[in-house]
Amino acid sequence: MLPRMVHQLIQLALDEDVGRGDCTTAAVIPAGTQARAVVRLKQPGRVAGLPVVEAVFHTLDPTVTFHPLVPEGADVDEPAAVATVEGPAASILASERTALNFLARLSGIATFTRRAVQELAGTRARLLDTRKTTPGWRFLEKYAVRVGGGMNHRFGLDDMVLIKDNHVALAGGVAQAVARARAAVGLSQKIEVEVETLEQLEAALTAGPDLILLDNMDTETMREAVARTARRVPLEASGNMSLGRLREVALTGVDYISMGALTHTAVSLDVSLDVDLEPGPATAAAGDAG
Amino acid sequence: MLPRMVHQLIQLALDEDVGRGDCTTAAVIPAGTQARAVVRLKQPGRVAGLPVVEAVFHTLDPTVTFHPLVPEGADVDEPAAVATVEGPAASILASERTALNFLARLSGIATFTRRAVQELAGTRARLLDTRKTTPGWRFLEKYAVRVGGGMNHRFGLDDMVLIKDNHVALAGGVAQAVARARAAVGLSQKIEVEVETLEQLEAALTAGPDLILLDNMDTETMREAVARTARRVPLEASGNMSLGRLREVALTGVDYISMGALTHTAVSLDVSLDVDLEPGPATAAAGDAG
Amino acid sequence: MLPRMVHQLIQLALDEDVGRGDCTTAAVIPAGTQARAVVRLKQPGRVAGLPVVEAVFHTLDPTVTFHPLVPEGADVDEPAAVATVEGPAASILASERTALNFLARLSGIATFTRRAVQELAGTRARLLDTRKTTPGWRFLEKYAVRVGGGMNHRFGLDDMVLIKDNHVALAGGVAQAVARARAAVGLSQKIEVEVETLEQLEAALTAGPDLILLDNMDTETMREAVARTARRVPLEASGNMSLGRLREVALTGVDYISMGALTHTAVSLDVSLDVDLEPGPATAAAGDAG
Amino acid sequence: MLPRMVHQLIQLALDEDVGRGDCTTAAVIPAGTQARAVVRLKQPGRVAGLPVVEAVFHTLDPTVTFHPLVPEGADVDEPAAVATVEGPAASILASERTALNFLARLSGIATFTRRAVQELAGTRARLLDTRKTTPGWRFLEKYAVRVGGGMNHRFGLDDMVLIKDNHVALAGGVAQAVARARAAVGLSQKIEVEVETLEQLEAALTAGPDLILLDNMDTETMREAVARTARRVPLEASGNMSLGRLREVALTGVDYISMGALTHTAVSLDVSLDVDLEPGPATAAAGDAG
Amino acid sequence: MLPRMVHQLIQLALDEDVGRGDCTTAAVIPAGTQARAVVRLKQPGRVAGLPVVEAVFHTLDPTVTFHPLVPEGADVDEPAAVATVEGPAASILASERTALNFLARLSGIATFTRRAVQELAGTRARLLDTRKTTPGWRFLEKYAVRVGGGMNHRFGLDDMVLIKDNHVALAGGVAQAVARARAAVGLSQKIEVEVETLEQLEAALTAGPDLILLDNMDTETMREAVARTARRVPLEASGNMSLGRLREVALTGVDYISMGALTHTAVSLDVSLDVDLEPGPATAAAGDAG
Amino acid sequence: MLPRMVHQLIQLALDEDVGRGDCTTAAVIPAGTQARAVVRLKQPGRVAGLPVVEAVFHTLDPTVTFHPLVPEGADVDEPAAVATVEGPAASILASERTALNFLARLSGIATFTRRAVQELAGTRARLLDTRKTTPGWRFLEKYAVRVGGGMNHRFGLDDMVLIKDNHVALAGGVAQAVARARAAVGLSQKIEVEVETLEQLEAALTAGPDLILLDNMDTETMREAVARTARRVPLEASGNMSLGRLREVALTGVDYISMGALTHTAVSLDVSLDVDLEPGPATAAAGDAG
Repeated sequence: MLPRMVHQLIQLALDEDVGRGDCTTAAVIPAGTQARAVVRLKQPGRVAGLPVVEAVFHTLDPTVTFHPLVPEGADVDEPAAVATVEGPAASILASERTALNFLARLSGIATFTRRAVQELAGTRARLLDTRKTTPGWRFLEKYAVRVGGGMNHRFGLDDMVLIKDNHVALAGGVAQAVARARAAVGLSQKIEVEVETLEQLEAALTAGPDLILLDNMDTETMREAVARTARRVPLEASGNMSLGRLREVALTGVDYISMGALTHTAVSLDVSLDVDLEPGPATAAAGDAG
Repeated sequence: MLPRMVHQLIQLALDEDVGRGDCTTAAVIPAGTQARAVVRLKQPGRVAGLPVVEAVFHTLDPTVTFHPLVPEGADVDEPAAVATVEGPAASILASERTALNFLARLSGIATFTRRAVQELAGTRARLLDTRKTTPGWRFLEKYAVRVGGGMNHRFGLDDMVLIKDNHVALAGGVAQAVARARAAVGLSQKIEVEVETLEQLEAALTAGPDLILLDNMDTETMREAVARTARRVPLEASGNMSLGRLREVALTGVDYISMGALTHTAVSLDVSLDVDLEPGPATAAAGDAG
Repeated sequence: MLPRMVHQLIQLALDEDVGRGDCTTAAVIPAGTQARAVVRLKQPGRVAGLPVVEAVFHTLDPTVTFHPLVPEGADVDEPAAVATVEGPAASILASERTALNFLARLSGIATFTRRAVQELAGTRARLLDTRKTTPGWRFLEKYAVRVGGGMNHRFGLDDMVLIKDNHVALAGGVAQAVARARAAVGLSQKIEVEVETLEQLEAALTAGPDLILLDNMDTETMREAVARTARRVPLEASGNMSLGRLREVALTGVDYISMGALTHTAVSLDVSLDVDLEPGPATAAAGDAG
Repeated sequence: MLPRMVHQLIQLALDEDVGRGDCTTAAVIPAGTQARAVVRLKQPGRVAGLPVVEAVFHTLDPTVTFHPLVPEGADVDEPAAVATVEGPAASILASERTALNFLARLSGIATFTRRAVQELAGTRARLLDTRKTTPGWRFLEKYAVRVGGGMNHRFGLDDMVLIKDNHVALAGGVAQAVARARAAVGLSQKIEVEVETLEQLEAALTAGPDLILLDNMDTETMREAVARTARRVPLEASGNMSLGRLREVALTGVDYISMGALTHTAVSLDVSLDVDLEPGPATAAAGDAG
Repeated sequence: MLPRMVHQLIQLALDEDVGRGDCTTAAVIPAGTQARAVVRLKQPGRVAGLPVVEAVFHTLDPTVTFHPLVPEGADVDEPAAVATVEGPAASILASERTALNFLARLSGIATFTRRAVQELAGTRARLLDTRKTTPGWRFLEKYAVRVGGGMNHRFGLDDMVLIKDNHVALAGGVAQAVARARAAVGLSQKIEVEVETLEQLEAALTAGPDLILLDNMDTETMREAVARTARRVPLEASGNMSLGRLREVALTGVDYISMGALTHTAVSLDVSLDVDLEPGPATAAAGDAG
Repeated sequence: MLPRMVHQLIQLALDEDVGRGDCTTAAVIPAGTQARAVVRLKQPGRVAGLPVVEAVFHTLDPTVTFHPLVPEGADVDEPAAVATVEGPAASILASERTALNFLARLSGIATFTRRAVQELAGTRARLLDTRKTTPGWRFLEKYAVRVGGGMNHRFGLDDMVLIKDNHVALAGGVAQAVARARAAVGLSQKIEVEVETLEQLEAALTAGPDLILLDNMDTETMREAVARTARRVPLEASGNMSLGRLREVALTGVDYISMGALTHTAVSLDVSLDVDLEPGPATAAAGDAG
């Protein structure tokens, strides 16, 4: 059950690609031609996005049937068929590029996240995403992070308080900012405070938020922050995280590490859709062009 | 004048990030606080997306004013302020992340395209994008390619005929496929045919399309294809193009090279928005988290 | 800054009332007639909804100006003018009924909530709303509860986990249900468990949720629940709360009391809009009919 | 066949409650769990809204099946099961609160209307609703009035002319106002004029509208108005009608009585949905909280 | 104040014509070029649609200013300038064709209606439109009929009962059909019955509808119908009305004549928009092509 | 597979006609009545729009079944049944007028286009439509032109460059305008230039566009233009084309003739829907009124 915002993005995507109609297929493929097609990952990785691919085909044409060949979240170690689709050739060809573009990006994020999570094996730290997502893709990219084994930070500005330095400055201090937040928010909303120094950390610990974010600290300072906090409040490390640095940060003992690169730097996987059209044995290799 | 599909994407993006409202700012920032903020590129590159950034701020709050400090498409060689915004602090803070996410991605594509275009300097070849764009972002990513100096291939399935191998197989040959297309399409639509071998090229040259796409050919075969075509029809080279191979391909004499990586592999630039809130001198550094 | 869902409701409301146009005004009022009108509460209460009233007028006609005469959330102890509007008579008359219907309902909820909050004076308990809101009105009714001095429970199904008995049964026990929730949810989501007996309470205390809901307990059992919990986890009392019972429940020592009646039983306040049309001294009394 | 505006309200209602998804069910209920649930009225009343409840379930998930157990408009004199639903547990649980909130309100209005209609038994008067409906709910609330045995006044500003005192003042008198309306409206639109005194009634009778509204008259004056009108034009009584006063007004001989309280003061009925989940015998009692 | 359905049609129309943008103007006209243009009727007729033309320009670009040179509904006896627009050249050129297409059609309908109305001069009959309008244009075409001096029949299926022969057959007779309608409809809805013979007319007169429609009767029978009705109920003549037959029908004494041709056969007027671009004296003649 | 813009127009059309519901059928036809209906052309012509008719019925009620009796584009030389529909009587009656209004207009355009195409028999010229279409109907009217045997000119402002005189003036000449366009447009977009004189033609031939439009030339000048062009570039004739002049223009040797009248002057065909309702043999004749 995809939320409405995903269906809206799918519609937007089909609108932009199909527009007034697929003029090539309309001109060249005989009306009524049926087709069967195989969706493939062409490089190793973790599959994410099969329900979205299905929704793309069904949005354009509810009569197309979709059969996943591997479970969502499967790790495929060689190029592998991951799903088949059957139905009117015109519908499959018109949906192909949109469906593949979704699958490529989401699998790329899940695959990258999985690698990052592996870096944290054996540590206390859990890997979080951020709000540095592709506009319009918030739900899907956070979903792919979960498929990759990561954990979601807040979804948006409305589901958790995150007090940053300018909020603190305006409120007159960490204590006041947290107090104001505590008075204003609803029952369901947690309060997190961002700190850049150990002094700010002490103030935050006194104020009593639900979480504390250590922003752009060096590893040594983080270690000291963990010691001073002594598990009273969960700690999140953030700021310019790379695969190479993750383990070092995790070993400081923080509870969470957030990493914007999960969604803004992950590279799309290479995917393809090969079509068998009924009248002949032709197989389409999805080219780069057009 | 951005087209409606861009305004729809911006709305979708604000909906997902702002949702029921920015609970942190509502709780902590006093009502009526005004702010001034500077948008910065934190690494060298070509700026793309300033009109989108402006539209993001105006969609959330029409009273926010936006002032670009450099022209769209400017190359900034050092970290640089590219725009300022002024208005209600709550509006600026609620739009910040969405605006930055647009700017980071579009500038990343423009910067990468510029580098690719430089590879073609002095050759006949022009650089084209493909339909391997982020779903929902077709217009914007193709726009960023133009800002980077590239040329747009067809926008979608509806504005040009591109006959691929399965179309050819079903139609009974290149000649028949082109003939069908010629009979069916409107006055404005060009016809391009994809070929993988020199034999197919000969058939295509006879059929008389407006363009021919050389799909996944090695460099030597491309050179031969250019020779046989003898400028009768423009040729496009496509398939797994990388920065490193572009110049070699261009030197075969093809007219166009299309490259999916322009939009699916370009990396976002690092951007930030620093806020000055009226009552105090606090400056927000956009952290990674949440 | 009202969220999009409120603007959508306002549009829906104007669509249904104005439809193809106000045929009476079109027929009878001379084009170009300007008007000034006063919005009044005709009985004592707490004013809620002035920003919505303003948005209704501006949605129909951006040239209408709106001036609140009292702050949002003001308590007016006698019938009182709360705002004025000026602009084209046709626009004001076409928006009148919709604007008043919003104001009447929201002020009714705020007024009723204020009374309920007064019942809790001097106790530890804070008053919460529920999800028993008028479909389409979730944001506005929860807003009115805040204006009335209440606190919001979760907004919807997506911003907090609330484990009820059937969840527990399917999961195989309170411990397992809480554990599953802990593993699945994101950083921002709290976990609450509903219990109906003291045995379930003990299991819940062991499982370690963020909140525990005491569902339909009698007062004596609640008191015992408070004692056993000993402030380790905040407790919410829920189930058939009425104004008359609130204080008794609060005195058990629970942290929160949720009350569906705040939104589903509150009665609209009586409001009116009196128009002065330019050419004459006529004053419209908003009748009941049509 | 519900009109589009109802489907829009249902979508808005599901959007606000389900949002990014039901995180509790996603976390705790095993994927694929099927459920059967019973919808119940927990107090006596007239059932209204079953088609809306069905549409809510189908909007979220078209595979859920809905079986009414009583006809729409049935009077249930004891707590009674009114419908069953079957399908994926996740879909039923995600729709539950929205479906119940619709049913509770509409049945409340139908039940209240039925009582009011009973007051008029044996008199000439028919009971009308007004435009004092919950914004966004105009169609549904007027539908519930019909289910309760009432009659609908005009739907909105566009389907009948209703000339009020300020229209009269601006037009220069009742005769001129009616004449202007007669000249301007289309074939389908009736013209009603509001009068507050017997003098205005005389003027209205001369002007020849299709209906006359007696606004806020005392019972004695109404009786005189009925006598003077002598059935030449149907008369509607309006203004602060309560259940207690209805019969007295009806006995004056007016043709219609309109009553805003039908929609703005009716109290929701208490309703519930009890779920049987496949793996176990658990039954959910719909609590008040969250 | 145009209703929402008109704004939706305007948006649809701009979407289809402008799409991804006006590529000619983007390529050829220097950014920032301002223009002034004159809208002209190139043949005599009655001007209808100026507010729609204004809305088209404002929808695309709110900074364009629009100045009507004649009042809506003016009769221009020679080719004449009817409005000017000023603003960014790109906006005016992108809106031109859509704006003209609206004006041409609406003025064509108003002009044709005016001629039809002239045929009825001195008779009792008023001219009505029908529901044979261009899908999507119901409001605008009925508006143009009013501008031309005609009167609107019902807007759609929801604002008046019109009982046709199949309704009568199913209901078991005219009397039963009218009785059912009377019991079911709201206060605002009139009831009209269609009859094809004098026998049916007698039944209808007994049943007591608000209006009777004489469907496809010859002139002689109509005259007899008028005589038998004796003004007890207004009569509408309908069926294959042409300009040539209108007067003959009107002279039978019917009250209304409805004519589908007003909206489905009226021919667009010839209109043009001539642009003065700032840098030069060029004047665009709106050609037929593209 | 109709594009989204057509579904949007269908929805708009049903919204305007059905609105709050078909009050006649609701009142008079017993719930559950099934019906079978035949759609007929009542005059000779070419059938266009059957897929749209089907979509109208399915949009209102997916359970209605539609069976075409002739292929889309068939020429029927006598009044003929073209399709049947079966399903709930209420759904068929509520969709009837909208469905017929689409069919009548589209068949009218196809029929008129067919006649125009016949005028060109044996000549080189192909018949083109223009952008003088009914706003909102661009896709459908261009589709009907194809059904009638015509060819589509560009769809909108975004899919081809068409340089008109004011563009030329601003750009400083035909050569500069074409050069600018060539530099700016994407791979898929052709460039056409409009000329009014032979001198402009010479300039255009030098500039090298993909097409040249001869605007409002007399026949003799066109002939000379064809001679001078000598097939180097395809020529389109445009401006005030009528059926009577088409052949004369075609014989000049131009490649294309564009004709706005195809879409703005074509007259709707007369169509009807005759319903058989289950309980009785009544047959509805679609009257003109209401």
